[in-house]
Amino acid sequence: MFQGLLGDLVKQFKQLPGIGEKSAQRLALHIIAERKDLAISLSAVLRAAAESYRNCTVCNILSETDICPICASTMRDKTKLCIVESSKDVFLMENTHEYNGYYFVLGKLLSPLDGVGIEDIHYSRLMQLLASNEFQEIILALNPSAEGENTIHFLAEEMTKSGLQITRLSTGIPFGGDIEYTNPLTLLTAFKRRFTV
Amino acid sequence: MFQGLLGDLVKQFKQLPGIGEKSAQRLALHIIAERKDLAISLSAVLRAAAESYRNCTVCNILSETDICPICASTMRDKTKLCIVESSKDVFLMENTHEYNGYYFVLGKLLSPLDGVGIEDIHYSRLMQLLASNEFQEIILALNPSAEGENTIHFLAEEMTKSGLQITRLSTGIPFGGDIEYTNPLTLLTAFKRRFTV
Repeated sequence: MFQGLLGDLVKQFKQLPGIGEKSAQRLALHIIAERKDLAISLSAVLRAAAESYRNCTVCNILSETDICPICASTMRDKTKLCIVESSKDVFLMENTHEYNGYYFVLGKLLSPLDGVGIEDIHYSRLMQLLASNEFQEIILALNPSAEGENTIHFLAEEMTKSGLQITRLSTGIPFGGDIEYTNPLTLLTAFKRRFTV
Repeated sequence: MFQGLLGDLVKQFKQLPGIGEKSAQRLALHIIAERKDLAISLSAVLRAAAESYRNCTVCNILSETDICPICASTMRDKTKLCIVESSKDVFLMENTHEYNGYYFVLGKLLSPLDGVGIEDIHYSRLMQLLASNEFQEIILALNPSAEGENTIHFLAEEMTKSGLQITRLSTGIPFGGDIEYTNPLTLLTAFKRRFTV
């Protein structure tokens, strides 16, 4: 039954993150058997979005315009730049409704083993951005993974030379988390960085 | 951030079964930020599939041709007809590699409360199919839900008049299931229909 175009559709759906064979079959059957209207509209929006979105020429955020609305805004805090890995992280940061500065999206994290070097994270463009602005604080909002730590240390070392304040997100036990299931390194740093309540 | 086309894409993804707001955002960002190739190919296959698939004019199965490959086949068991609710059920039955007869897809189950009557389940076409073939057994492979039971009883009553053998899928405790979590009706019928091992 999953031959022809229905089989092709299953293969396409399977490439989406978190969609396995069974889910892909269910989605394909559902949309073709019961929601052809949705198949047509999803098809149109997918193509339009794929053709419209590009990376902001300043900060790399996914944008429908060459310069994204955040970079184009003059209402934001000009003293702060938040460096993130991906456009998704910008959305998550914006969602906190706390940060109001600018962003720079690296796209990748440094990983010498995978051949990801400083030019793959748009390093020279980041340096240009720092040179042409008057940021005072650079917030490194990167994952506390091996690659993230690697990238944090590299960038922090380079940027402290220019006298900027370099910060990073705190690490520790997440709200709703459990000490029992917290890895030793996280617990160690949470203990070391304990604060008075 | 989820404005413009990216917001439209989230809305479209959210209409797929089992995809909530968060998943829809993740899918939209992933496909536009990292897999534009997939966005384009998924878009093309969705449209092609939506435009190509129709219901088989004999059995209603989703098909790329007016008469589906199963109805067109002369190699199948001409004495058996399996009545199912949807094309998905045909796939599941075929997947057992046990049944080799023909199918009829009702599309819906009888539900007087929801205004689903006998013409909504293609009843007269089913009767034509029975009249023009020499089926001996009709297998009612419908969900043992209120609507399914309703439909099973209606069809069985109508079709036994014509001297056909009418069967239905067995009900009972599923493999891997647990008596403790089995509802009383299922347990009752499983007990009543117990068989010698």
